[in-house]
Amino acid sequence: MTALIGIDWGTTSFRAWRMGAGGEVLDRVGDGPGILAAAGLPGGFRQAMQDRIGSWLGTAPVIASGMITSRNGWIETAYLPLPLDAAALAANLTLHEGIHFVTGAVSDPDGPAPDVMRGEETEIIGHLSGGGGDGLFVLPGTHSKWARAEGGALTGFRTVMTGEVFGALRDHTILGRLIQPGPGSEDAFRRGVEAGRQDGALLGRIFSARTLALMDRLAPDQVADYLSGLLIGDEVAQGTRDAGGSVTIIGRGDLALRYQTAFAVLGIAARIAPPGMAQRGLWEIARMGKLA
Amino acid sequence: MTALIGIDWGTTSFRAWRMGAGGEVLDRVGDGPGILAAAGLPGGFRQAMQDRIGSWLGTAPVIASGMITSRNGWIETAYLPLPLDAAALAANLTLHEGIHFVTGAVSDPDGPAPDVMRGEETEIIGHLSGGGGDGLFVLPGTHSKWARAEGGALTGFRTVMTGEVFGALRDHTILGRLIQPGPGSEDAFRRGVEAGRQDGALLGRIFSARTLALMDRLAPDQVADYLSGLLIGDEVAQGTRDAGGSVTIIGRGDLALRYQTAFAVLGIAARIAPPGMAQRGLWEIARMGKLA
Repeated sequence: MTALIGIDWGTTSFRAWRMGAGGEVLDRVGDGPGILAAAGLPGGFRQAMQDRIGSWLGTAPVIASGMITSRNGWIETAYLPLPLDAAALAANLTLHEGIHFVTGAVSDPDGPAPDVMRGEETEIIGHLSGGGGDGLFVLPGTHSKWARAEGGALTGFRTVMTGEVFGALRDHTILGRLIQPGPGSEDAFRRGVEAGRQDGALLGRIFSARTLALMDRLAPDQVADYLSGLLIGDEVAQGTRDAGGSVTIIGRGDLALRYQTAFAVLGIAARIAPPGMAQRGLWEIARMGKLA
Repeated sequence: MTALIGIDWGTTSFRAWRMGAGGEVLDRVGDGPGILAAAGLPGGFRQAMQDRIGSWLGTAPVIASGMITSRNGWIETAYLPLPLDAAALAANLTLHEGIHFVTGAVSDPDGPAPDVMRGEETEIIGHLSGGGGDGLFVLPGTHSKWARAEGGALTGFRTVMTGEVFGALRDHTILGRLIQPGPGSEDAFRRGVEAGRQDGALLGRIFSARTLALMDRLAPDQVADYLSGLLIGDEVAQGTRDAGGSVTIIGRGDLALRYQTAFAVLGIAARIAPPGMAQRGLWEIARMGKLA
């Protein structure tokens, strides 16, 4: 029997789960259209959802999180302030067209560097609800999120544009001209992390990706990994300056491993969370909200 | 009577001076083709020079500095190590096709972040030869150079890719989507400098150019100036961490003023060098080399 249908709907991704009475996953769907693609379909978000999980609908409440509640999503909802826990997210669900939408979080809204997230808060709640404990969390991506949880609540976070900056530097600056594709070099990545952790002067360090290559001290097929290491090394060194307690990477595949390597180079043990954090967070928020 | 002809020939610029017996400027030419453009002309560098200063040639020795001695220039010359003064540059002039070429400098060639320059060393020599004194020098540009002089010699430098990174972020990341052109906002620039000086965590700070705009705390026509301030503020804060003594900006126009403003926000008095540093440096090196 289906107890809950959960959707993690991001800018470029759609994942959904059909859950049983204990929150266990009965069925799952991935690879649906993200909000950018779905918004352009005839029938829009409703049709996109119908296409992917139509056979599930009507059997249980539906809860959704992610960029689907942003200005370009299905309905725009107001951000919630910190500290933020599952109860507060449950108390602020927005029911719209039969779907319970989980809103996002805002950090330091009146300060010099306000920040926002939609979706990652649910993944962190998923981690906490599973007994994962407080600490520092990194969700690597085009825009990485660095978040801190204390007392079972999200208490701070920052968006770090590492992935997108890497792409812009590689594709649209002189640093890209010497890059040749290669099989991937963990050694070059580690060298970059070592260089990038140095002193925070990233703008004055990245040029070394060019000079080292010009001096034949970095092979053309290693430049991209070195540059990636420079950026991630800077990100991790800055993000852990005041770190104490456990560090958890919420992410998948090569990128999560790459971050784990960077932490290791800096002498910090970081564990990669098991998969399913978004689904577990949706379950927890629905349970708190008495939907499931 | 012409005593010396000097050329500052960069990647995208060509400037030349006809000098008298005391190094005074008798005539000047600007706006010639940089090496990228000149290399593609029929007749190449020789013809480009002939087109601009043909009437001067044959009357005096010719000395040239800048990227014209790089791999893509007229002749590639080896970099000289630090410390580097006018005498060392004069002792290492390369005579090729009747022109005395000033070579560039290399910093930390065997270290983790080697760096190179071609042309800026001559401008700094020009400053020093005029009695400008030692200290910290900033030559703003697509690739800014930060250099230190001690005892009349260039002792260290670093290339900081601020200008090119700004262009890549503005034109090829999400930060550019909210930018609208405007008359220029010194207030937004100053706000950016204040934010950028904070902590060196530049990758985690630039997203504020988006969130502040989304929250209507930064007008669309102020986003570019704010982002420029973030980057230059980071550059200046990092570049002056260990600074003592005088700070001199070698550059022109709005960009030099922008850097001077950034220094002022950080409480550092920086002066802008008078124009003509390249010409004076060429004269000094020629004089040391007994060409003039």
